[in-house]
Amino acid sequence: MIKVGIVGGTGYTGVELLRLLAAHPEVQLTAITSRKEDGMPVADMFPSLRGRVALAFSTPEKAKLNECDVVFFATPHGVAMAQAQELTAAGVKIIDLAADFRLQDIAEFEKWYGMPHSCPDLLKEAVYGLPEVNREKIKSARIIGLPGCYPTSMQLGFAPLLAQGQPLVNESALIADCKSGVSGAGRKAEVHTLLAEASDNFKAYGVKGHRHLPETVQGLQAIAGRKIGLTFVPHLVPMIRGIHSTLYASILPEARNTDFQALYEQHFEGEPFVDVMPFGSHPETRSVRASNMLRIALHRPGGGDLLVILVVEDNLVKGAAGQGVQCMNILFGLDERTGLMHIPVMP
Amino acid sequence: MIKVGIVGGTGYTGVELLRLLAAHPEVQLTAITSRKEDGMPVADMFPSLRGRVALAFSTPEKAKLNECDVVFFATPHGVAMAQAQELTAAGVKIIDLAADFRLQDIAEFEKWYGMPHSCPDLLKEAVYGLPEVNREKIKSARIIGLPGCYPTSMQLGFAPLLAQGQPLVNESALIADCKSGVSGAGRKAEVHTLLAEASDNFKAYGVKGHRHLPETVQGLQAIAGRKIGLTFVPHLVPMIRGIHSTLYASILPEARNTDFQALYEQHFEGEPFVDVMPFGSHPETRSVRASNMLRIALHRPGGGDLLVILVVEDNLVKGAAGQGVQCMNILFGLDERTGLMHIPVMP
Amino acid sequence: MIKVGIVGGTGYTGVELLRLLAAHPEVQLTAITSRKEDGMPVADMFPSLRGRVALAFSTPEKAKLNECDVVFFATPHGVAMAQAQELTAAGVKIIDLAADFRLQDIAEFEKWYGMPHSCPDLLKEAVYGLPEVNREKIKSARIIGLPGCYPTSMQLGFAPLLAQGQPLVNESALIADCKSGVSGAGRKAEVHTLLAEASDNFKAYGVKGHRHLPETVQGLQAIAGRKIGLTFVPHLVPMIRGIHSTLYASILPEARNTDFQALYEQHFEGEPFVDVMPFGSHPETRSVRASNMLRIALHRPGGGDLLVILVVEDNLVKGAAGQGVQCMNILFGLDERTGLMHIPVMP
Amino acid sequence: MIKVGIVGGTGYTGVELLRLLAAHPEVQLTAITSRKEDGMPVADMFPSLRGRVALAFSTPEKAKLNECDVVFFATPHGVAMAQAQELTAAGVKIIDLAADFRLQDIAEFEKWYGMPHSCPDLLKEAVYGLPEVNREKIKSARIIGLPGCYPTSMQLGFAPLLAQGQPLVNESALIADCKSGVSGAGRKAEVHTLLAEASDNFKAYGVKGHRHLPETVQGLQAIAGRKIGLTFVPHLVPMIRGIHSTLYASILPEARNTDFQALYEQHFEGEPFVDVMPFGSHPETRSVRASNMLRIALHRPGGGDLLVILVVEDNLVKGAAGQGVQCMNILFGLDERTGLMHIPVMP
Repeated sequence: MIKVGIVGGTGYTGVELLRLLAAHPEVQLTAITSRKEDGMPVADMFPSLRGRVALAFSTPEKAKLNECDVVFFATPHGVAMAQAQELTAAGVKIIDLAADFRLQDIAEFEKWYGMPHSCPDLLKEAVYGLPEVNREKIKSARIIGLPGCYPTSMQLGFAPLLAQGQPLVNESALIADCKSGVSGAGRKAEVHTLLAEASDNFKAYGVKGHRHLPETVQGLQAIAGRKIGLTFVPHLVPMIRGIHSTLYASILPEARNTDFQALYEQHFEGEPFVDVMPFGSHPETRSVRASNMLRIALHRPGGGDLLVILVVEDNLVKGAAGQGVQCMNILFGLDERTGLMHIPVMP
Repeated sequence: MIKVGIVGGTGYTGVELLRLLAAHPEVQLTAITSRKEDGMPVADMFPSLRGRVALAFSTPEKAKLNECDVVFFATPHGVAMAQAQELTAAGVKIIDLAADFRLQDIAEFEKWYGMPHSCPDLLKEAVYGLPEVNREKIKSARIIGLPGCYPTSMQLGFAPLLAQGQPLVNESALIADCKSGVSGAGRKAEVHTLLAEASDNFKAYGVKGHRHLPETVQGLQAIAGRKIGLTFVPHLVPMIRGIHSTLYASILPEARNTDFQALYEQHFEGEPFVDVMPFGSHPETRSVRASNMLRIALHRPGGGDLLVILVVEDNLVKGAAGQGVQCMNILFGLDERTGLMHIPVMP
Repeated sequence: MIKVGIVGGTGYTGVELLRLLAAHPEVQLTAITSRKEDGMPVADMFPSLRGRVALAFSTPEKAKLNECDVVFFATPHGVAMAQAQELTAAGVKIIDLAADFRLQDIAEFEKWYGMPHSCPDLLKEAVYGLPEVNREKIKSARIIGLPGCYPTSMQLGFAPLLAQGQPLVNESALIADCKSGVSGAGRKAEVHTLLAEASDNFKAYGVKGHRHLPETVQGLQAIAGRKIGLTFVPHLVPMIRGIHSTLYASILPEARNTDFQALYEQHFEGEPFVDVMPFGSHPETRSVRASNMLRIALHRPGGGDLLVILVVEDNLVKGAAGQGVQCMNILFGLDERTGLMHIPVMP
Repeated sequence: MIKVGIVGGTGYTGVELLRLLAAHPEVQLTAITSRKEDGMPVADMFPSLRGRVALAFSTPEKAKLNECDVVFFATPHGVAMAQAQELTAAGVKIIDLAADFRLQDIAEFEKWYGMPHSCPDLLKEAVYGLPEVNREKIKSARIIGLPGCYPTSMQLGFAPLLAQGQPLVNESALIADCKSGVSGAGRKAEVHTLLAEASDNFKAYGVKGHRHLPETVQGLQAIAGRKIGLTFVPHLVPMIRGIHSTLYASILPEARNTDFQALYEQHFEGEPFVDVMPFGSHPETRSVRASNMLRIALHRPGGGDLLVILVVEDNLVKGAAGQGVQCMNILFGLDERTGLMHIPVMP
């Protein structure tokens, strides 16, 4: 059994980790920390876990994270990097759901997250936890920086296009029009995500610039091995879970006859958590609700030269906790699907 | 024109007052205060008011409330009573949307609201602003304490039963099973009313005791002229606006043959904002959305001795701001319907 | 492996059965019928099942239901009773999610469902599939009529009170104020359950009389061994899944000192799918979302003599498909929890 | 007073027309037809209109539409054109909310709507009812074909760009990523718009081709006086009302220094129902809820060469019924704002 600790289990990615890990056959939940809730049984805060998770929150001091095999950080940005040195030194693997180990460019990190990076050395060896791109590196990582929810959908949606030797689309003018449920904003008391504000309403936000842009550009450039240009426009959808990314790419004249459907199907062949749907499908976010699946469908409206790629995922699973468990499975040599075979909840 | 000031216009009852008053033909909006947002145009906070409300928030000091004809308090409990002495001394009428002037029993006020009452003398003369019950007293009031949202629906729903000389129902065992949209909780940053918490979810709350219970008991006893007993169970509905109260009363054996439908229709005859629907109807909250209307329907399931009374209102209009404007109209001798004839928004 | 057939898999209880059974370790899904969708892969209609359910819909003729061990009917009322004779003769167990085998009184059935009952003999031996009440009978049943969604919550909520030798409450005046998500209305094209009609809205319906009333009265009387009287008022909540029943019972003077909390805890001790929460709790529907759990909490507002019982369940799981699988587990001698240990999805 | 008839008042655009016209100071509602609901008071179908609309539905025969000044068609496609000849001959103005008089190219109409056009002569003289573009022509029109909901937002969003003598953006590669609430699908009993299907869910639809594409292209080309190319991707949002269009246009190198904000502000100067918000704003659909306002905001993410235009409107008001009333006001020489000054309902 893998001994697992969770730092910061009071947010949505934390409780989702608990849902997944409590039923994972190879995991022993060992500790969960919250300085503020020290002593409170987890199931008192989340009655959905009554009878299923016996742990209580404890302070980091009591939690003995050093004795875990792996520690998940479901914390605000900045927490994981503060503890990474000590834990890795103790041989503990780290999987960070926040942004501390996503951006390799420290200046970019500091610009977008407004704090200095406290362990640049560890950052250098950290692996970006997107299994469909980085599976081999994940196997031997000590620190995994999990992708953000939007970046997962954008990178997997564009990956097959960019992974080719020759550009197929205008890679300098990619567009990602993304829509997310409000759980993506976290379990924080804020006015703009109140039901009375966000429900029966739709809006864009962060069009000027969003933290997930530099991360996605970094990831796409790594896939392409070339510079790319991306415009990313996020929107808030009055729903709890789910991301729908509508991606646009201009097909280059010389690539007009490419069989993009075949390209995508081949690229993701054998991937347990990527489903390339038939050409012209319209994936729905609920078709992946509460599951680790990501679905993709391709369109060429009017048979023209604009490729439209529709991608859906559950932002809390494939976009966060599920991806973390998938990385953990790889890290510990388990079948990647272990504990992740939940059938989406529909309706 | 009536010169109107609003203290505390950043919450839902405040912005609803602005929607109603900005289009009221006899009102001149003179000042709106918010110490925190001093100088900010109201329409910057609420873009729905762009081009319609030119006012900016100002500090109470700058607002010259003393020069208003009437001041609405859309504030947390405790604010109105702190300013009431000065304003009434200056001849300004006060309409309080909070609870400062609802409960005549000071001990009850202090028990439920956890603060001493700072102007017991003014409280004595304050009028409870439920026009269908207190119309005459409202006409000459200096201070009006507006009913809470739930109490409005419960009192108007039970009133015709209790207003009779002889009890018709078991008045010691009334039940009110009430359901409210989340705007009733206000525009406060809190976790439990986040969309990701409150949407696709239903729960009761405050079953142990809720501030609207003593207020409703006080009101019902005033109507009946007798002691009554009430159990009040509020629930949170995943919607923005609307209250649906399902009221239960055991018909006394001697009242079995009462024509309750006729009783209700007669009681509310001529009331511009109470609609007694045909017997056996199922009023929907959306049938009063964004309007000052309250609808009532009666049932006797299985022809038995339990009277079921269904009541719907928009908690922000008839349950708050609209009722305030209705009281203002009465206070200033206007047609009670002035500025309140919005047709409900459906769908 | 248990060979399972499903008749009528295109509705919500059908697709929920598929979600549960496709991941059930002792089940082999053998056939699913839909005359209209003959030949269509199930996963084409429900993309959430892509890669998880390989079956296609087939006509009843092709489906060879006779070779199944058990057949679930997730059909409109009237279908199961038409096929019951033939299937039971072939030794196939029947679990009906519709109402054909719920009401033992044929006149009542015909009154509420508007059709003659076509197999009164089989009805006589049919067992009402509420494991917490009928576990022993279920073990050897040939036909199981599953409870409706509301009746499950009302019966389990009142059961501990009524199962005592002496009445503890006024059993002639029970009240159930119930609220259900719209999936309870089924996957039928109807105007009143459109999102644009039912969302941001709340209403009661069927107050005059609802099919779940006679069924619940029958069940409660069986539990009590006495006549009971019940008023049932259902409401429609703008959410997908979940039932919240708020039950009211007047405590008899002689029972005032009963420890109701202890009574409930003892009554349900060891039940895998009933969770009696601490006294004074407020269970939320989402705390059981997509799981077979039912949670109960007790209140005595103001310490008085009205007992308020709050019950939540997922109407598609414990209120339908999950209860069916629970019965199947009992029927085939499996651990009752097999395939039903999903942790509720929150948020 | 303008005598107004409505053909087909049982859908969402019909009931919205009723809400607007019943409170319009210059309108006398004369007749409303529905063959199916003949004799039923309108307020029985829509209780929100109780006490406000006394009309009953009647058959077209009884309705004497010939005696109206103007008739609105809130009907399925094909109905208006069947009655247009007779009504215009009688001197009655026609405002069609369906598509019969939108597309000037009959072949296009027949291709997208699957029916022959029955009055091509009248079509030729019909005016496309977008006041901000066609105000002068509307004044003297006999037949007005109102724009679709999406096309209104796309045309007004792109208009200032295209109305210039020289192209400013790549006009052959415009993209409109649009999101609509479900009321846009109408009040029809269909599975895919049930609350249990469409709520807590997000999806694109009709990416292959949507009827609003040819209409929008026709309108944009009329504005530009040049050929344009548009990709239109509609999405379904789990909300009742509202459209949010996110428009993308590549700025041409020679237009890089254009002050687009000034361009938009000048273009729409004096327009009562178009609000150009400050550069970089994020308009929300609720900021126009239940009002005839349309709001626009511009962005240049990263200061680059992609112009992002955000547009919100209420699909039932500016996208349908409100636009119809606006056209009627113009047609009859009234102030364009008459009866349309509702302040948006927020929250």
